[in-house]
Amino acid sequence: MTHVHPGLFVTLEGGDGAGKSTQSALLTAWLEEAGRTVVHSREPGGTELGLELRQIILHRRGYIAPRAEALLYAADRAHNIATKVRPAIEAGSVVIQDRYLDSSVAYQGAGRVLDGGEVRELSLWASEGLLPDLTVLLDLDVAVGRARRDADERAWDRLEAEAQDFHQRVRDAYLRLAAAEPERFLVLDATLPPEQLAAAIRDRVERMLAAR
Amino acid sequence: MTHVHPGLFVTLEGGDGAGKSTQSALLTAWLEEAGRTVVHSREPGGTELGLELRQIILHRRGYIAPRAEALLYAADRAHNIATKVRPAIEAGSVVIQDRYLDSSVAYQGAGRVLDGGEVRELSLWASEGLLPDLTVLLDLDVAVGRARRDADERAWDRLEAEAQDFHQRVRDAYLRLAAAEPERFLVLDATLPPEQLAAAIRDRVERMLAAR
Repeated sequence: MTHVHPGLFVTLEGGDGAGKSTQSALLTAWLEEAGRTVVHSREPGGTELGLELRQIILHRRGYIAPRAEALLYAADRAHNIATKVRPAIEAGSVVIQDRYLDSSVAYQGAGRVLDGGEVRELSLWASEGLLPDLTVLLDLDVAVGRARRDADERAWDRLEAEAQDFHQRVRDAYLRLAAAEPERFLVLDATLPPEQLAAAIRDRVERMLAAR
Repeated sequence: MTHVHPGLFVTLEGGDGAGKSTQSALLTAWLEEAGRTVVHSREPGGTELGLELRQIILHRRGYIAPRAEALLYAADRAHNIATKVRPAIEAGSVVIQDRYLDSSVAYQGAGRVLDGGEVRELSLWASEGLLPDLTVLLDLDVAVGRARRDADERAWDRLEAEAQDFHQRVRDAYLRLAAAEPERFLVLDATLPPEQLAAAIRDRVERMLAAR
């Protein structure tokens, strides 16, 4: 391995439509240009086993008990961290991951069935305590997020109206998590132009890599 | 529903070849004769979702990280308890289940990778704290267990020799669990004749049902 620096574990968080994929692509391009090895992951579904679990969690017909669902996300996480993320960051790569434990806490906590603190503990047990070096939260007003999704020609319906309250709770939960760990989080206004967001992320990542 | 008594949750524990299936069948026959509704379950794989998870846990090719495996067992457990066991015992049925949290603690703990106490906590989170009313441990000397499995025409090989030590640790772990909760456990010598074992189990179950 030519990498002498330790790696970096960067996670992207935020609602659907906030621009996580775009920022992941822009950050990757810049890092690879700089000679870094970048490994992409996502949860759920970052590994082969994870894809099977993602299929069950997101696409299986029929009821899944809330704790079973949380445990399936945690199983996906445990395998992804142990077999993919840790080896990569130990080898000096930069791992850019779409969603991690903050998603679990924000979404499952906002569902009001499970306790957010318990979900977080479960995640940390699964990952043997691995927290990201940097978590970029692409924060988006709930109404704006809806408008963006509508622009994707998806129909607006009663279910989505009911879901607005849920999305508001998710956003609030994300912001509380960021406030509790200001060192780890970089909170950005997702309505800014993509290049401006990318520059802010690059700036932070560059300083972190330089410090290693 | 004609049941006025609350239900009963009975789990059977012990190594393969200890006679769990036989005792489950004998107890079921006696309970049904007495007019009780009996629901069978097992872990992993007591539910439809559980069967999919059992397939992954027991038959999937390829490495599964130890914590991911423990979390998959716990997911199976959460769904089994929430959707099958709790509704049944709340409706007054007797649930007889092949393996439960004591298996997780004994086997995963004996594997020496995970901490038994943590595995127990995980199980209790999954099941929202449900412990069996009665756990029958069919205790068997490790050498006798091996001889019984050999009688099933399975080949004896180096791997199994190495496994002897593992089976010994599982047995020791089971006995420690039973000693820690003597009220919940009924420990029986699995080399006794099946009918004698069945009588001992019936006797305990009968007293428990009478007390309700």
